Amino acid sequence: MKIKAKGSIVVVSAPSGAGKTSVCNAVIESDKNTVYSVSYTTRKPREGEKNGSEYFFTNEDKFKKMAKEGKFAEWAKVHGNYYGTPKSFLDKTLRNGKNVLLDIDVQGGLDIKKQYPEACMIFIMTPDLKTLKKRLVSRNKDSKETIKIRLENAEKELKSLNKYEYLVINGNLNEAVDRVKTIIKSLDYRIKKGTVCKVS
Amino acid sequence: MKIKAKGSIVVVSAPSGAGKTSVCNAVIESDKNTVYSVSYTTRKPREGEKNGSEYFFTNEDKFKKMAKEGKFAEWAKVHGNYYGTPKSFLDKTLRNGKNVLLDIDVQGGLDIKKQYPEACMIFIMTPDLKTLKKRLVSRNKDSKETIKIRLENAEKELKSLNKYEYLVINGNLNEAVDRVKTIIKSLDYRIKKGTVCKVS
Repeated sequence: MKIKAKGSIVVVSAPSGAGKTSVCNAVIESDKNTVYSVSYTTRKPREGEKNGSEYFFTNEDKFKKMAKEGKFAEWAKVHGNYYGTPKSFLDKTLRNGKNVLLDIDVQGGLDIKKQYPEACMIFIMTPDLKTLKKRLVSRNKDSKETIKIRLENAEKELKSLNKYEYLVINGNLNEAVDRVKTIIKSLDYRIKKGTVCKVS
Repeated sequence: MKIKAKGSIVVVSAPSGAGKTSVCNAVIESDKNTVYSVSYTTRKPREGEKNGSEYFFTNEDKFKKMAKEGKFAEWAKVHGNYYGTPKSFLDKTLRNGKNVLLDIDVQGGLDIKKQYPEACMIFIMTPDLKTLKKRLVSRNKDSKETIKIRLENAEKELKSLNKYEYLVINGNLNEAVDRVKTIIKSLDYRIKKGTVCKVS
């Protein structure tokens, strides 16, 4: 029996304020076998950002051409800029036996799942909506109006919970990180399509 | 959001000689949240066996009546005795938030999956068929003819691998135990049907 390792796609979504980015950063930092997906974007590089590291930087014409040619697993326009997840990066990373983590909103996550039905779907949430509100208020980043919109969005996103496979409650950052790492580790033993598994 | 814990069913199957029982025993011993399923059987209790502990002991008439009434998630006749997994035990244990581990052959495992589609299906295998043969020979328990039959059965069972969700290679007992425990741990975060998950 020969088993050729193949990585997994890990989609992580969460309402704003649930601590998704902190959890994902800690997972990537401590798990050498999991990398962030690198998106294409039409926004200008910020200081210190390198092409191919944080993003692949491109212009609108080239982006639209790629989208038309079906080169993105999902794409979206946010605040006037385009962002897209290139299939080529996902496929190459999976073939190399690494997992790709996508820190992405529910809509994008569901698009990924359509293209990659074996993607592992993780939803991160605070223990309750009250805690979410408290965190949004205490980080002192958003206006009252924005917080209200974020909470309404959270309720909407929670309605898609049944499309996700795992729910990680982030009451404590370290615990949430361990939980996501346990889920990702378990994927190593999942029987995946396209994995060579031959009796010999 | 209120989350009520609910246990998971864990089906573990393997060809004879792959070390399934050793792995399962070690998992049960070290994981307080996971218990063995207790089957009904018509075979006589052996010395030290207590009713309701290793098995629920019953007679053939009562067993057949239970089977007719659909009280078993699966049942089979082995060497003249009946064995059956009672749904009542599974349901009660799951409701109590515990996982139930079933050490069961492929046919029984697939029957369980039909009744409990959310059951987690784990297949244990040696790194290859050669190693399986070596183990069967070295444990000095079976005749040459029996070993031949066991190897043929192994090849047959491996054809059902695509019905299983996880493959754990048992090259090293401790490693295999850790892998099964990681898989079982990850189930705690799975979004299950029937789990109360209400926004509040």
